[in-house]
Amino acid sequence: MPHEECGVLGMRAPVTRDLATLSYYALFALQHRGQESAGMAVVDDGVFSTHKGVGLVDDVFNARALTALGAGNMVVGHVRYSTTGTDRLANAQPLVVNHRKGRMALAHNGNITNSSELHDVLEDRGSIFHTTSDTEVIAYLIVEERLRLSSIEAAVSAVMDRLEGAYSLVLASPAKLVAARDPHGFRPLCMGRTDDGVVVFASETCALDAVSAHFVRDVMPGEVVTVDDLGVHSDTSHCGKKPKRLCVFEHIYFSRPDSVVDGQSVSLARQRAGAFLAQTFPVEADIVVGVPDSGLDAAVGYACASAIPYAIGFTKNKYVGRTFIAPDQPMRESSVRLKLNPIRSVIKGKRVVLIDDSIVRGTTIRHTVGLMRLAGAREVHLRISAPPFVAPCFYGVDIDSADKLIANQMSPDEIARHIGVDSLGYLGVEQMLSIASIAGPFCYACFGGEYPTTVPDRMEKDRFSQKIGRKV
Amino acid sequence: MPHEECGVLGMRAPVTRDLATLSYYALFALQHRGQESAGMAVVDDGVFSTHKGVGLVDDVFNARALTALGAGNMVVGHVRYSTTGTDRLANAQPLVVNHRKGRMALAHNGNITNSSELHDVLEDRGSIFHTTSDTEVIAYLIVEERLRLSSIEAAVSAVMDRLEGAYSLVLASPAKLVAARDPHGFRPLCMGRTDDGVVVFASETCALDAVSAHFVRDVMPGEVVTVDDLGVHSDTSHCGKKPKRLCVFEHIYFSRPDSVVDGQSVSLARQRAGAFLAQTFPVEADIVVGVPDSGLDAAVGYACASAIPYAIGFTKNKYVGRTFIAPDQPMRESSVRLKLNPIRSVIKGKRVVLIDDSIVRGTTIRHTVGLMRLAGAREVHLRISAPPFVAPCFYGVDIDSADKLIANQMSPDEIARHIGVDSLGYLGVEQMLSIASIAGPFCYACFGGEYPTTVPDRMEKDRFSQKIGRKV
Amino acid sequence: MPHEECGVLGMRAPVTRDLATLSYYALFALQHRGQESAGMAVVDDGVFSTHKGVGLVDDVFNARALTALGAGNMVVGHVRYSTTGTDRLANAQPLVVNHRKGRMALAHNGNITNSSELHDVLEDRGSIFHTTSDTEVIAYLIVEERLRLSSIEAAVSAVMDRLEGAYSLVLASPAKLVAARDPHGFRPLCMGRTDDGVVVFASETCALDAVSAHFVRDVMPGEVVTVDDLGVHSDTSHCGKKPKRLCVFEHIYFSRPDSVVDGQSVSLARQRAGAFLAQTFPVEADIVVGVPDSGLDAAVGYACASAIPYAIGFTKNKYVGRTFIAPDQPMRESSVRLKLNPIRSVIKGKRVVLIDDSIVRGTTIRHTVGLMRLAGAREVHLRISAPPFVAPCFYGVDIDSADKLIANQMSPDEIARHIGVDSLGYLGVEQMLSIASIAGPFCYACFGGEYPTTVPDRMEKDRFSQKIGRKV
Amino acid sequence: MPHEECGVLGMRAPVTRDLATLSYYALFALQHRGQESAGMAVVDDGVFSTHKGVGLVDDVFNARALTALGAGNMVVGHVRYSTTGTDRLANAQPLVVNHRKGRMALAHNGNITNSSELHDVLEDRGSIFHTTSDTEVIAYLIVEERLRLSSIEAAVSAVMDRLEGAYSLVLASPAKLVAARDPHGFRPLCMGRTDDGVVVFASETCALDAVSAHFVRDVMPGEVVTVDDLGVHSDTSHCGKKPKRLCVFEHIYFSRPDSVVDGQSVSLARQRAGAFLAQTFPVEADIVVGVPDSGLDAAVGYACASAIPYAIGFTKNKYVGRTFIAPDQPMRESSVRLKLNPIRSVIKGKRVVLIDDSIVRGTTIRHTVGLMRLAGAREVHLRISAPPFVAPCFYGVDIDSADKLIANQMSPDEIARHIGVDSLGYLGVEQMLSIASIAGPFCYACFGGEYPTTVPDRMEKDRFSQKIGRKV
Repeated sequence: MPHEECGVLGMRAPVTRDLATLSYYALFALQHRGQESAGMAVVDDGVFSTHKGVGLVDDVFNARALTALGAGNMVVGHVRYSTTGTDRLANAQPLVVNHRKGRMALAHNGNITNSSELHDVLEDRGSIFHTTSDTEVIAYLIVEERLRLSSIEAAVSAVMDRLEGAYSLVLASPAKLVAARDPHGFRPLCMGRTDDGVVVFASETCALDAVSAHFVRDVMPGEVVTVDDLGVHSDTSHCGKKPKRLCVFEHIYFSRPDSVVDGQSVSLARQRAGAFLAQTFPVEADIVVGVPDSGLDAAVGYACASAIPYAIGFTKNKYVGRTFIAPDQPMRESSVRLKLNPIRSVIKGKRVVLIDDSIVRGTTIRHTVGLMRLAGAREVHLRISAPPFVAPCFYGVDIDSADKLIANQMSPDEIARHIGVDSLGYLGVEQMLSIASIAGPFCYACFGGEYPTTVPDRMEKDRFSQKIGRKV
Repeated sequence: MPHEECGVLGMRAPVTRDLATLSYYALFALQHRGQESAGMAVVDDGVFSTHKGVGLVDDVFNARALTALGAGNMVVGHVRYSTTGTDRLANAQPLVVNHRKGRMALAHNGNITNSSELHDVLEDRGSIFHTTSDTEVIAYLIVEERLRLSSIEAAVSAVMDRLEGAYSLVLASPAKLVAARDPHGFRPLCMGRTDDGVVVFASETCALDAVSAHFVRDVMPGEVVTVDDLGVHSDTSHCGKKPKRLCVFEHIYFSRPDSVVDGQSVSLARQRAGAFLAQTFPVEADIVVGVPDSGLDAAVGYACASAIPYAIGFTKNKYVGRTFIAPDQPMRESSVRLKLNPIRSVIKGKRVVLIDDSIVRGTTIRHTVGLMRLAGAREVHLRISAPPFVAPCFYGVDIDSADKLIANQMSPDEIARHIGVDSLGYLGVEQMLSIASIAGPFCYACFGGEYPTTVPDRMEKDRFSQKIGRKV
Repeated sequence: MPHEECGVLGMRAPVTRDLATLSYYALFALQHRGQESAGMAVVDDGVFSTHKGVGLVDDVFNARALTALGAGNMVVGHVRYSTTGTDRLANAQPLVVNHRKGRMALAHNGNITNSSELHDVLEDRGSIFHTTSDTEVIAYLIVEERLRLSSIEAAVSAVMDRLEGAYSLVLASPAKLVAARDPHGFRPLCMGRTDDGVVVFASETCALDAVSAHFVRDVMPGEVVTVDDLGVHSDTSHCGKKPKRLCVFEHIYFSRPDSVVDGQSVSLARQRAGAFLAQTFPVEADIVVGVPDSGLDAAVGYACASAIPYAIGFTKNKYVGRTFIAPDQPMRESSVRLKLNPIRSVIKGKRVVLIDDSIVRGTTIRHTVGLMRLAGAREVHLRISAPPFVAPCFYGVDIDSADKLIANQMSPDEIARHIGVDSLGYLGVEQMLSIASIAGPFCYACFGGEYPTTVPDRMEKDRFSQKIGRKV
Repeated sequence: MPHEECGVLGMRAPVTRDLATLSYYALFALQHRGQESAGMAVVDDGVFSTHKGVGLVDDVFNARALTALGAGNMVVGHVRYSTTGTDRLANAQPLVVNHRKGRMALAHNGNITNSSELHDVLEDRGSIFHTTSDTEVIAYLIVEERLRLSSIEAAVSAVMDRLEGAYSLVLASPAKLVAARDPHGFRPLCMGRTDDGVVVFASETCALDAVSAHFVRDVMPGEVVTVDDLGVHSDTSHCGKKPKRLCVFEHIYFSRPDSVVDGQSVSLARQRAGAFLAQTFPVEADIVVGVPDSGLDAAVGYACASAIPYAIGFTKNKYVGRTFIAPDQPMRESSVRLKLNPIRSVIKGKRVVLIDDSIVRGTTIRHTVGLMRLAGAREVHLRISAPPFVAPCFYGVDIDSADKLIANQMSPDEIARHIGVDSLGYLGVEQMLSIASIAGPFCYACFGGEYPTTVPDRMEKDRFSQKIGRKV
């Protein structure tokens, strides 16, 4: 499954209060965007307290940690996913740094495509890096501009001229909360407000719901929003300079169904994808079954459009999480049924339309189809609520390398045979672009669209870990 | 929500192998039956190793604990729920005791209704009790009979003449695995077998699936099944002596939808309940929405029978679990939305049929209905896939005291007004008895049926905690 | 090094107060008597709260555990050492059991020599055992007698007719605290009182000091002391029925130097042992060095009597404790210097009298002597402040099996050559008996004296773990 | 008690091997120099793995952590003490940073007196700081010079022209290990070598002993020692440029008695201090007692020079460590006896010469003297093996502020009355300078000597924590 790399959060209250607990709830609602580490910096009248850790929001923040963070009038929070096992704690965000003009806490979702060049420039003048993340590069640039310019928001705006790629940022200076979204608007970022006046920025609206904040609006691509004692200020000088390119996978997979991303309900977008599949790939069948959790909404859409009954075909073990799974093969086979067990009484003897949201290497879906056959499915017709993956992402999504993507190796018919289904249908690219058209235009480079920016020659998770030459 | 008190597990392999990991998977599949503590005793050629702990199966068993337990040819496992906070570790099962004839590991699901009388008799002759559970009483009785009789299974059978109430037992002597189910068959117990010959007893078939064991059959009410080196032996001398009374709430709420309990698929039983509600309480509406997770199957059944489209109306936070929730009220309000957030785009402007599985005090459903109104539901028609709760359970289910059950205080119309719905319909008692008729007859005392046994004067969680008089 | 198996503690206050924290301090002072597990039962107006765990007192009891135990008017506490790795938590004390007449918390230091026979009798009548310790046998006997007799102290007294071997007991009924010491008085037990009236029983007086309690007196061999609301009552009916036999190793090794055991200061007894060694085995030398910590007092005594200067010849790493030590050999060599490093500037070129308290297999002292040679010692004259070990102990001390004791395999001269010292002298048996004569007469069976009781045919750590026959 | 702030460690082996475990042993031997956090960076053919944590070496490094660090040919290690509770994890060392020329791991013991100025210069050009420690300033300077110069050791040498104050540094580039000591030589730093060719740098020789390394020599004040594949190289260009000023408190208190610091045995230096006290402040007494652990060596010296018998007057609880102590006053009184209990039988009726190593505020010694009186001491003559503290330290020692030092408020006679002793004698300043003259000349500014460098106007633990002004 592809992985998003982060969720960001910011809050600013008119007065000092228990923002840490409120932020904990909001981060908990963003948990699906990053499960590796979580963190929070609370600012109380200019004094920063930080707590970060490896693990789920629940693991990192307990009552004692929240109490220790104390009250404050601003918070910057973050959840993070990463595929590298090294230095996970060091890379946890928000990044909190001291500089000539004070302190700054910074949280980032996205991927900077010219970070390698920026890194080199910074190192050439003597900068040192504690982490391997783009976020530290952004911090250096902001501090550099801040020395020249008279406000933190002016510094952020100036840095946006130098950054390429995807970024939704939330940062706190001692007195101000600033949110910024790259001019393409790759990653979502929204703004809300609670009844008692707390301004909230978050990657998704579900985090607003979790703290009973009203949705105010999405931060616009290229916009810098600043909140200080005088209110909310918007700098739109970067807006419209580049074409909007929201990541379409936010609607297909990443975002929670109850979120509204750039004006479009995620749940409805997925239902529409299901309805398109029903129109394009109709089939005679007895039931429509979604693969939990991300195939369920499209299954509802398919069922509705096709008039084939919707069925709940799997029980998902809701305690799944940090489950220890033994590494030997026979156990791992069984481990799939631990998490997802087909309901034989529902499936047996039925012609099933099975809906999933994507195929990467094909391993998991092949196993799932095998379980349905074991449970007695007469026919299995697989419908995928996205087009085939064909290219890597440079904007913050961890997709497998191009040569491992099954769609680059086999035709749909070959894939169908490989995974053992009676028929297979993918959502068309044009269909995909229309399921959430109000939120577009989209970046869909991973599905064969153009890359909106120049892209690096090669992707490196951690360029330093490869610097083993003897340079001294 | 009412709570089941336990899940039991037993395994016996022809040869010593890594049964601990296999049992871990099976206990994990039974996790929904008890979240307070978990435990496992592994028997290796007569030597017992035990590991028990407070917490979820995942918390209690990690790779190191499983390695420490080591290989064996038998396992007795348990998951436990309890409402009392005291002595939770001491009460964790299986109970492992030494006696004249060796060791014994015992796991129990149910509630003995004459345990107080048995307790008194045992104490009068000098017995001491380390725990406050019925299980220790059963252990004493088995040991007592074992001194007279020539085998452990004969002792279990003899004890069944002295026990009243509900019990599904799994126990291991140094050489034998024994499973027994009370003559009424209150609690489920099934038997399976893996391809490589491991015999498995479990509270539900989903545990068999988790270890790729084939379902063999349910243990019959009153049956004692013994597994030793010579094979599987059945003692049916108690069978048929009392009328079968499977707890109907196993089908309505406790068991997992993918389990088959006494021959009846739980998922189908719940779908039937939904279909009955559609027939008895039809309504013009736009969508049918189930309250996750236990209202979903009935919602599918209602949608199918009524031809009103099924919709996914809530997003459930799948990371919910050990979430720390602040105790102050405004936070707790928000905490409900943390776990369950209505999807506004699905609900707004709709006439909604809302399906839930039961109403106890009415507090939670009232809040849920309020969230649907906030999300813009035009009408909310609540359908409950069970009859009203009217009486306490003495057989292992933790239902609120009779005077706190809303159905004992208000008429359905009053309840509807109280919780703010446009209409309310409960499943009829006769309907309930027919949704899973193959698995019955049922005990449905909590819904107004007869108690199959004499019942104690009063229920006590821990009679010792009340013994504060100065008896010395 | 031989190991003591336990320390016991009891407190009773006139009113409910924070006895848990006070007991924590006292147990901490008894830590040297048992490092495997620790536990405490607090009684508050008849209600028992218990906390036990594997590890040091510090690990088991933190602020939260003490708060959870709450206030009370009685405490029974325990620290335990054991050589068996199995069921360490299950065997932690105090043992808290329910019986016909209420609850009881029991802590025990010692070893019952007829426990196997008692065990058989109890099992024959159907008793079940959760632990493998003698303590559970004692609990059964007390409950049995309590059913016949009108008070808990009468029951304890009656049980003393049936027990053989070593025991210092502290137990609490809902209203009374009882302390008892076996008629031989093998293990120490003292009584103190704080300024605000808390009566304290403890294995050693250093625990009284830790809670600022005044020493009142030692519990006499055979005495049963009961504390209730009316005061302190003594039952001396068993006193004088058997000859006193205090374990001499309490003075040589087990007890803390600041304790006074049966009227004799432990520090002074050890200094006397050193002085005897100076008289019996004089030598021309430059410095006297004790092996920390247990050889230091005798070294002071030797230095004083010989007029050879006392020197501090080793630095002991005071952070040693739960140190992880790699299992490979070269590392372990180095690990000895981790804990104890000779001070070269003190030792180099010197003729050293080295004082240690015992030799078991000779491995450790041989290594220590090697380190002194490496540090440049010109001569090493080893003096042992006890006679040679020649026999096992049946009263609660874990000494190696007789065939592994070096003194059973070699003459002193051979031992001297084996461990590489220039001369070797042991304390004489008669000398040993006179270093603390006020506290005697002693049991010194391990040094060749008579066993004061009949002894079991063989010692078993856990007879159940050997019951692997197929008795069913 | 004054506190040292750090211990440093470096190792370089000819080939890749398990240096992590070896370093663990060495850090464990340096534990007394810093108990707040510990860390280690292992370099394996240019690849850095780091593990740091809050707590003792034992807490931070377990078998799993050491395994995860893996094998390597270089290690930089650190133990740290700090009085500030904030950001303890962030400030743990070694600091590992990425820069233009690769990676660098840096460990530092000492205090830079011009760090505030250096900090300002760095921030002015846009540097950001993740920590509040001097170490990050040093890292920036080294990286800056490394960009100009052709080797890491040349960069370190260049930085030494810019740093003022105390520093003993160990750092690793991908290929080289570098150790440097400030030109005054405030903090010790020694070099050793194991039989199999591992070069070891450590703050004290006791760490060499712990890994069976031979002492080679002390790193000279101002020296930069580099170890690479070609061997050991010394840059002495800074040597002799400033007068040597070893911190005299290393001999009086910080270093372990078994260490040899700049050619002088610490144990012998302390014995000499005791002998001087016996000459200058003789008294008729019965015993000489040292306060464990740091007064013991001087007590031996006093006893030897005065011919008054040395006695062990206290039992120290060797399990003391992370002991939870309740915050209420009566408990804390008792808590002193938890750690240190006077031995009444030794002290009662005696005229005692009590030796301690320093008096800061006088609170602790006053309490200790009170305990001796309670134990029956007839007279208490206190001798302090150092002169009175009168001034703060700017070179890495945490001494109380000048106005809280009792010697700045009272005359010795007044102090004697205040703490309740019959007489009081301090070591003379000239005496102190001669107890370890081979290791000098010394910095003894805290005892009234000159500060060897210009000193900052005021000491700040964390200047950022005070930056709460609204600079944005």
